[in-house]
Amino acid sequence: MNSVSWRKLSIKIKHSGKRMKLIILLIFILAPFCGSAQTNINIGDFGVISGNDDATPGLQKALEACKQCEKPTLIFPKGVYHFYPDFGVDKYCFISNNDEGLKRIIFPLFDFKDLTIDGQGSSFIFHGFVNPFVIDHSSNVTLRGFSIDSHRSFHSEAIILANREDGIDVEIPESFPFEINNGILVFIDDPSEQESLTTIGDKATYPYCTLLEFDTEKREIAHLAKDHYVGENPCVVESLGKRAVRIFNKELSGKPGNTLVFGANRNYPGFVVSDCSNITFQEVTIYHSGGMGIIGQRTHNITVDHCRVTPSPGRMISCVADATHFVNCTGKIELSYNLFENQFDDATNIHGIYVQIARKISPNEVIVQLKHKQQLGFDFLKEGLEIEFVKGLSLIPKGRSKVIEAERINKSLTRVKFLTELPYEIEVGDVVAEVRDYPFIHIHHNIIRNNRSRGMLLNCRGKTVVENNYFHTPAAALLFEGDAQYWFEQGGVSDCIIRDNVFDNCLFPGSWGDAVIGVRAGIEEDFEESRYNKNIRITGNTFRIFDDAHLLDLYCVDRLIWKNNKVEKTDDYPKVRGKMDRFQVKYSKNIKIIE
Amino acid sequence: MNSVSWRKLSIKIKHSGKRMKLIILLIFILAPFCGSAQTNINIGDFGVISGNDDATPGLQKALEACKQCEKPTLIFPKGVYHFYPDFGVDKYCFISNNDEGLKRIIFPLFDFKDLTIDGQGSSFIFHGFVNPFVIDHSSNVTLRGFSIDSHRSFHSEAIILANREDGIDVEIPESFPFEINNGILVFIDDPSEQESLTTIGDKATYPYCTLLEFDTEKREIAHLAKDHYVGENPCVVESLGKRAVRIFNKELSGKPGNTLVFGANRNYPGFVVSDCSNITFQEVTIYHSGGMGIIGQRTHNITVDHCRVTPSPGRMISCVADATHFVNCTGKIELSYNLFENQFDDATNIHGIYVQIARKISPNEVIVQLKHKQQLGFDFLKEGLEIEFVKGLSLIPKGRSKVIEAERINKSLTRVKFLTELPYEIEVGDVVAEVRDYPFIHIHHNIIRNNRSRGMLLNCRGKTVVENNYFHTPAAALLFEGDAQYWFEQGGVSDCIIRDNVFDNCLFPGSWGDAVIGVRAGIEEDFEESRYNKNIRITGNTFRIFDDAHLLDLYCVDRLIWKNNKVEKTDDYPKVRGKMDRFQVKYSKNIKIIE
Repeated sequence: MNSVSWRKLSIKIKHSGKRMKLIILLIFILAPFCGSAQTNINIGDFGVISGNDDATPGLQKALEACKQCEKPTLIFPKGVYHFYPDFGVDKYCFISNNDEGLKRIIFPLFDFKDLTIDGQGSSFIFHGFVNPFVIDHSSNVTLRGFSIDSHRSFHSEAIILANREDGIDVEIPESFPFEINNGILVFIDDPSEQESLTTIGDKATYPYCTLLEFDTEKREIAHLAKDHYVGENPCVVESLGKRAVRIFNKELSGKPGNTLVFGANRNYPGFVVSDCSNITFQEVTIYHSGGMGIIGQRTHNITVDHCRVTPSPGRMISCVADATHFVNCTGKIELSYNLFENQFDDATNIHGIYVQIARKISPNEVIVQLKHKQQLGFDFLKEGLEIEFVKGLSLIPKGRSKVIEAERINKSLTRVKFLTELPYEIEVGDVVAEVRDYPFIHIHHNIIRNNRSRGMLLNCRGKTVVENNYFHTPAAALLFEGDAQYWFEQGGVSDCIIRDNVFDNCLFPGSWGDAVIGVRAGIEEDFEESRYNKNIRITGNTFRIFDDAHLLDLYCVDRLIWKNNKVEKTDDYPKVRGKMDRFQVKYSKNIKIIE
Repeated sequence: MNSVSWRKLSIKIKHSGKRMKLIILLIFILAPFCGSAQTNINIGDFGVISGNDDATPGLQKALEACKQCEKPTLIFPKGVYHFYPDFGVDKYCFISNNDEGLKRIIFPLFDFKDLTIDGQGSSFIFHGFVNPFVIDHSSNVTLRGFSIDSHRSFHSEAIILANREDGIDVEIPESFPFEINNGILVFIDDPSEQESLTTIGDKATYPYCTLLEFDTEKREIAHLAKDHYVGENPCVVESLGKRAVRIFNKELSGKPGNTLVFGANRNYPGFVVSDCSNITFQEVTIYHSGGMGIIGQRTHNITVDHCRVTPSPGRMISCVADATHFVNCTGKIELSYNLFENQFDDATNIHGIYVQIARKISPNEVIVQLKHKQQLGFDFLKEGLEIEFVKGLSLIPKGRSKVIEAERINKSLTRVKFLTELPYEIEVGDVVAEVRDYPFIHIHHNIIRNNRSRGMLLNCRGKTVVENNYFHTPAAALLFEGDAQYWFEQGGVSDCIIRDNVFDNCLFPGSWGDAVIGVRAGIEEDFEESRYNKNIRITGNTFRIFDDAHLLDLYCVDRLIWKNNKVEKTDDYPKVRGKMDRFQVKYSKNIKIIE
């Protein structure tokens, strides 16, 4: 049976009322693929072979076949598989902390149950503006044994040649094609990637929003380097011949030989997991993603085990944003035995979302607003949901209630009616969060290094255990965040163990913060009363430090124990900070530090 | 009954099974608004009054009330009504010849029947990035007696101060706020427009894609001026203090005092009409739209009568694209007694859409592709549809068939199965178009002037009558287009009357084409055989001309009569063309020209 008739079959099934006959026919036809318990489906049976051809049309047929089986395992025999945009599936996705949009999806894993994709060590290469995986309303999905990469990365890189009064000169490697239009630097794709099926007028440009210098030898942020945000405004440049370019920007400078990274937007995360349960990543390598590596939202139980986020040869950067990120999830989140390196943001951030009260309509009825651009469309308020009211500037909770009506007005606004009246202190500008089955977070045996920004943002109220990890991060290795004014991310741990980790020369660029473990919650009033993070035990860790930055920088914490931690001095980096207190603690109580 | 409880009511109705009781309740409650035959609903009853407050929340409630009545007329007492984005409705729209996207819609006229909106002379002012009207799957809708305008236009304008070797200096009026970021000119909105409900991180910038000089005195394209496309690359500039800016672009020049227009994208058309029937615009003024003024697609019967497209004071440009545009429509299209002036593209274009054959799967099965970026998602192929096969380079039809299966793969691709095999000449690269009830086009008593580009593009196979109009257009007043290689617009008239019009000094800039009436169809082979346009009668018209451009420039036409037309010489513009043939006719037959 060839693959075209597969598609015909599924259409017929959808449209016919003669169910029984078709089911019998289906069982007969699916026999080669579907067994009773677990079924192996080989991608090769759908005309897909390792090589340069577009594997996407065959993949879509294979996924249709998987839908018909009970416990399908889709097998890719070890090889290199290429995926082009043409035959991807469209879906408008609101993806928390990434960019919303109509996505062209290669692996549209919608409404699947008990699916395994086994790559057997294969490489999946994605071309053009596609989203590799979107897993939506699915359960018991395991992704195993493959790598993903983009033929042309969404970010770009250049080698610094020289500094000048009015900017810098760089040379752009061939793997980052570019052109200069009307004096403006525009990154593009190789003309050979303009497929016959490409849309007219749809020019492939790769916008950049921030510039950051990396040390080419050490493969980490350069000494004292900082972000240079250019926003939506590209660089004004002049060609110096061949691939050399003069960038006019007086604020830019860098060491010749170092790498200037042009950071990208977050349109194309590697794996989006929405409204699912029991999703497992095993031995998956993410060489690149044009957004976060793995972003899970409103999902119950996610495991990321023995995975790697690491750039492919010739690139400094892996993911253009966080390696992993989890929003309003429940159950358990386990990150174990992973390598997270050279991503352009944190290794993980696990949090909830606050919606702001925009208007009061009646004593128990309000209009709430999703405020941050990358949270729009994150609908979670529904009838029966338990919520808490929180003061916007102090993050102090002021009572709970239940949603009895919720009407979505648009991607920003929802009208909500509560079972009880709003607490008297709650006003326009304060926020509402879901009270949920906060997940148990278990982060262990991971290596986190050489990325931009922080290691892990611990913002979950479920039990959080961070143990046996290695951190070498430019900013804080562990940060307790959460705010109701800019990011609107709900944080506040209630039971957090940090033990037996190695913090190796964190804060090494000297320009990315001053505390290895810190609180950066958005608390702006009632410091004496607000105790946003609680019950933190830091034991048995090793801190390797090259200067006198804070080991701990806390405020508004209740109950913290520090004991049995080892501090070792190194000469690995030049000292940049004068004498600072190892432990800076403000507005906190029950803090026990035993050095 | 206040307006909040209106909304509650409609929610209850949606969610309850107790239908009868609710219907009785509804009849009782709606009594103040709904009569038996025609019901007037006053926007004032929904808390909306003329003035600066956001009329959108009240409007949404009023539209809900209209939905409950049989023949509702929503009345806006004469006044000025402001609409902000916050309470608009979201819908992803594919809008032919405009930009697709998730639109924030102020008037979401979805699934309405027998609705009239009567503005009684009111002004509707739209703020921010909104789509004023989207009329979708509705019938018998009349819009009457109001104007639409944008508080901040989507395009921008500047006054030319001086020419330089490396570009020009301009002064930007206060009504077009701007800033210079890293040496790049960025148009923005007034900070006062950043409402409390605005999304964080959502900076309001107004991109521009093309520059064109207008004569400030004459309010039309300047002598010999041409488009300067900048694409996605904004201008590199330097501040000269206050609102004066130096633009570095060697190709730019212009007369000091003239107006440089920064043309905009097509994200925010004024009125989108999709899949409707019997839609009437009467006495509607479009001062501005960030896309086409009125775009109708797959709609049966559209009337635009006594309407005006004209810029508001202080602006040179009205709509940033065509005043009107109709795609795959049926029934009748009537444009009567309208003023179409200063729009940044044509007054109208009435055509179908070609899809290109991208792959042959079997003798009667293909994958077709929507090729032009602004046609993506234009789904029209469905079971039972009659289609014709057309050669891509000659536009010669090669037979008809019927669709027996159509499966949308994504917004670009559709798999189609035909009743019969493809004609043997039809290959990959050839195209398919719908054979439909081509509309009767009646265009009469309109004034078309001072816009950028052409007057009317006549690309419809239904009877087309263009009479008693006045044209003063920079490019051809009337053009027969259609092609299957770039725009993929199906054209080809079969019965076209052009009579009693005045063509007044058309082609006046001297740089926008050489024929008052012309063919510009995309025919590239088989000229001897292709007869794309047929049966054209041009009679009783007056041509006022200032130099010797062609009156007619034809190819591949069968049957054309020219008689009783008057040609008058004027001195209104400097001559730019040498002696040209008044009638240039190639590859045509049955052409009768009686001067």
